[in-house]
This record gives sequence, structure tokens and C-alpha cells, in this order.
Amino acid sequence: MTTEGPTGSKLDYDGERISVGCDVAIDTVHRIMELNGCTHEVASEVAEHLVESDLSGVESHGVMRALKYAEFFQNGRMNPRAVAQVVVRENGVEEIDGQGGIGIPAMRLAAHHSCARAKETGMAALALRNVGHTGRLGAFAEYAANEGCLMIIVGGGGRQNWRQVAPYGGRKALLPTNPYCIGIPGGDRGPVVLDFATSQIAGGWIYAAQSAGAQLPEGALINKDGYPSRDPNDYFNGGAILPSGGPKGYALSVMAEMICEAMLGPVTTECNWMMITLDTSRYRAANTMQAAAEEVLSELRNCPTMPGFARVEIPGEREADQRTLNRPLGLQIPAPTWSAIVAASGS
Amino acid sequence: MTTEGPTGSKLDYDGERISVGCDVAIDTVHRIMELNGCTHEVASEVAEHLVESDLSGVESHGVMRALKYAEFFQNGRMNPRAVAQVVVRENGVEEIDGQGGIGIPAMRLAAHHSCARAKETGMAALALRNVGHTGRLGAFAEYAANEGCLMIIVGGGGRQNWRQVAPYGGRKALLPTNPYCIGIPGGDRGPVVLDFATSQIAGGWIYAAQSAGAQLPEGALINKDGYPSRDPNDYFNGGAILPSGGPKGYALSVMAEMICEAMLGPVTTECNWMMITLDTSRYRAANTMQAAAEEVLSELRNCPTMPGFARVEIPGEREADQRTLNRPLGLQIPAPTWSAIVAASGS
Repeated sequence: MTTEGPTGSKLDYDGERISVGCDVAIDTVHRIMELNGCTHEVASEVAEHLVESDLSGVESHGVMRALKYAEFFQNGRMNPRAVAQVVVRENGVEEIDGQGGIGIPAMRLAAHHSCARAKETGMAALALRNVGHTGRLGAFAEYAANEGCLMIIVGGGGRQNWRQVAPYGGRKALLPTNPYCIGIPGGDRGPVVLDFATSQIAGGWIYAAQSAGAQLPEGALINKDGYPSRDPNDYFNGGAILPSGGPKGYALSVMAEMICEAMLGPVTTECNWMMITLDTSRYRAANTMQAAAEEVLSELRNCPTMPGFARVEIPGEREADQRTLNRPLGLQIPAPTWSAIVAASGS
Repeated sequence: MTTEGPTGSKLDYDGERISVGCDVAIDTVHRIMELNGCTHEVASEVAEHLVESDLSGVESHGVMRALKYAEFFQNGRMNPRAVAQVVVRENGVEEIDGQGGIGIPAMRLAAHHSCARAKETGMAALALRNVGHTGRLGAFAEYAANEGCLMIIVGGGGRQNWRQVAPYGGRKALLPTNPYCIGIPGGDRGPVVLDFATSQIAGGWIYAAQSAGAQLPEGALINKDGYPSRDPNDYFNGGAILPSGGPKGYALSVMAEMICEAMLGPVTTECNWMMITLDTSRYRAANTMQAAAEEVLSELRNCPTMPGFARVEIPGEREADQRTLNRPLGLQIPAPTWSAIVAASGS
């Protein structure tokens, strides 16, 4: 047992943690998925994806999600037997229909299909619908970047279920935290990947702060009257998360709703997605592009820091570095979370 | 004469302004462009574009730019006789080659070509190179939206000439203010358009504050040691603009550099651009999409406000509203700017 979080964790938890080897974590999550009706293939894919998220330091999308997935399979919000499919409409538009299942295999299918199509024709636009939670988006953009592609992923819609964020200047939570994720081949250290919510903080932080009795950072929340608050209870009491960067995060959020709700139509499971993919090698040979990228990125890495910062990071590199550091150490999971996971796996 | 700025102006100038009718403003800018070697067609297009920017309340991209354009034609940085062209590479990639001219006609050609191609095939990716200043990007995304298209425009590259913004955590200006612009058909009041720099403020504000002896807003600048500053002179003294939204604006900026410099290659004139366009009508009929958009947008417009805000705005609607308000009133141009424009027009 340990009270040290994994390197790179952003979870605000200072209780006891359990050290769990990757194989054990994968097997345990796999059992939960199979117990809840998933096929062996889906169970494997989901378990590996969640463990990779923890290793990347993104605990919010790690094995703790398995409990939520189990709940959604049990209450019918997701279908464990769904098999995501590529659908081609009469007018040539391609879509991934997730059939109401968990979104991780659907998003993986989308990424693979998009990269193949982009290599064939130069570019691909692919909508995803009828999908549950899609896991850590960065993993898919990173896959695309390793395939030599630029990939843009935007999610939104279903705001009736996701009243979390106030519009800029407003005091009522009306919008989801609409994520944007973009990946592209980078320099000598691999892909550059950005993966963020358009809100100041993701919704999960509020639950984490509430259960820990902690305060949230300044500038993240307003109470029901529109005044700044650091108290997570104010959020549940009619408050809202603020958009990131004020009017800019708000504008990106509205755009995600226009694309994923107004353009793609009503959301059936969790939210809709648009994935746009370009084959970068049509513009420039991979090695030339890598050298040019490295020139930009090494300049940024070597930038003298502001007071309070140890170094300038490249988007996506921290996750890759964390995986290398954490893999031999395994996962460091909050003790109550691991107990619940073990219980849910029927062990 | 007046000391009232046009409704919607964001320029921090409280000196005397001259009221100028739209036709007079267009004729005067037109003469400057022709005097500097532009064809009648290019002169017309640029003059109308700049006046529309002023009417939209975006003075930073209005007629004051004509003086800068004249300077760039005179010092050889832009070629007044350039004619932008669509180039098709052997591998099928399409590009706009601006031939080193002013970027406004090149960006307009790109928008028209992209929308036509998107209607033909569903989508288009179009790189723009060898272009000077491209004017107000929102105008082109708005055109696309009115054509039923979703359009994403990203600009970057040429950072040797644009060391303006510090990376997140860094204290040295290394990056440009990399703009992103996205337009899509909206609800009953027309397109939704976002058009922003990835930095806290655009570079023009610093010049405006310096010449006015004014301070900048908090959180926009750091001095050469990385400490917060509101003094524009600190910027010119080795300081930097901060990225918008901290790591998020920074990540968008790095991505713009990866796309427009690493992928598209060295910048020759001002910066490189990538334009991605989708035909929204392949996903949903225009009237259905408009109704769904209006449902989201009217909810946002009716959101109760935070203290200090009069209303919640929809991205892009303010510019459209300003044009309607300002058109009958003409332009209200800072007196020294108008004198310089008149002088440059040979009147």
C-alpha cells in the first residue's frame, strides 16, 4: 500500500492507494466487462484502454471508469453486446454507428477507418453516433499521428443530460464540457496531441472535490447567482462551471454543439462525434516534416521558464513519458476504488 | 467630427474620430491600393473587405490596415500584381498559391473553391501559401456558412517574424498569435462564427496601448523575467503575451505551428493556412439543421446573466449586428488614421 499517487496524476486524492500490476488490473477489469455481458474482444479492448489511461496519468479516464460502465450496462444505458459498424449513406457520407454500446471500440474503429480512408483519398470526415463513453480521446489521435495523419475529434450534443457549463456572461449551466482533441506527427519524441475540455475543469473534478471535502481552484466555478465560488456544493446547488478562456472556450463549446447536435442530429447514447482526418504525407514527406516539427518543439522545450514552472511541456508528451515511467511500477489506485473494482469483478 | 467610437469597437482610443461614409471610405482605400500597383479588381475587393471589417466593429482589421498594406507593397514584402491561383499537385493535393500578393483575394478564392469542392465531394482540404495579410477571417467562414458549409481555418508558421507569445510555463516570446476561425450555418439569425487568436490579446492591442500611454488588462502580458505586467513597454523589452486559457491556448498554438509550418513547409510571405470544409447538407437538411441550431442558440441567448454582463452573445452575431447598426452611420475613424489614409490616397 502507498499514499503516493502515480507520477503525473491530476486526481486530488491524498488517501491510501493500492499498487496493482498492469496484468492484474487488466484481468480484473476484463472480468467486470465480461460479467456485464461484453464479448471477450470488447472486454479486452476496454480493459487495456483503461489501464493505458491510468499509466498515462489520466486517472479520470482510467480503471475507475469500469464501475460506471458496469452501472450503464446494468441500467440499460449501454448495450454490452453492441458491435460498432461503418455505415455508408446513399449520398456517400460515412458514419460509425456504435449501436448503443461502449464507445471505446467504436472510436477505435473510427480512427482505423479514417486513417485508411485518408491514405486512400487524402482526407476523411466521419461522424460517430449511438456510442457510449469513448475513453481517452488522446489515445485515438495518437494512433492517427503514428499513422502519419492529422486528426481532429470534436464531441457534443445531448445537452439535456449535460447541463454543466455556463455560457460566457451567463450564470446558468446550459452546455456540456465539449471536448476537442487534435493529433499530428511531431518531432523526434513522437506525436503532438492536444486533448481538452472547453470548460475550466472537467466535471469529474467536482465530484472528486466534493467527496474529499476539498475546495476547487479559483476561477473554475460560479454559484447560482453568478458569483465566483470554490465550493463544489455550490455547483450542485444551481451553479455552473465556467468556460475555459472566457469567450474562446465558450465559442468552441457552441461550435461543438452546432456540429454534433444541430448538424449530426439528436444524441441517443452519450454524445455525437465528428472526426476529420488528413494524410500529412501528401503535403510533406514524413522525415522532412519530423525534422521541421523537431525544430519548433525543441525550441519550446528549451524555453526559459516562468517563476513556478519546472519546464515547458509539449502537448501529449507528458502522457507518453508517464506511460514509460509508470509501466514497470503498475497502477497506484485509490484504495476504495480498487476495493469496489475487485468486488465488481466477482473475485 | 466626433469622439464617439463606432458601436462595437474594441479599440482603446478616446481621441477625436472622423465620420466617413462607406462609399467615401471604399473610394479612398481603393485609390491607395491602385496607387501602389494593385489592379482595379484587387483594389475593389480589398477596399470593400476593410470597410466591412470596420462596420463589423473589428477596427483592428479595418481601413487602418490600408497604410500597412501600402508599406508592404512599397518595401517589396507583398507583390501588388500577384494573382492567386489554385494549384493541383501530382498527388491530388490542392493548394492556393497567393504568389506573394495580398491575402484577401487569395483567402476569398480559397473559400469559394473549398465550398464548391465540398458540395461536389462532401469535403475539401486546401492549403494556402505565399500569401500576405488575409484580412478578417470571419468574413470567409461566414461566406462558407451561408453556403451551407462548416469551415475550419488555421494559420501559423513563420515564427522567426512573429515572436509574440510565450509557451505555457515559459517566459520568452517564441510563438505567433496563431488564429483559429470556424464557421457553420446557425439558427434564425444566421451563421455561428468563431474567430480568435490563441493568445490572451492580439499584437495590435500592445501597439495601441503603447501609443495611447495606456495599461493592458491584467493577465495578458509578462515582463522579461516572467512576472505579470500591464505595461506595454515591458513587452517590447523582452516580455511576452501569455497564451489564452493557459495550456489550452498554448496547445492550439503549437498545433497551428505543426500544421502550418511542419506539415505545409516554410512560410514565404506572412504565414501559411489550412482550410477544411464540409458540406453540412450531406448530414442534415438545411431547414432541419437551422431549427435544431436555433433551439440551442435561443436557449443560450435567453440565459440569465452573470453580474456585469448585459446578455449572453452567440459567436459571430455581434459582428453581423454591428454591420446592420453601423452601415447607415458610416465609419468613425480615429482622426490621425483618417488623415494618414487621405494623404496616402494622393487626395
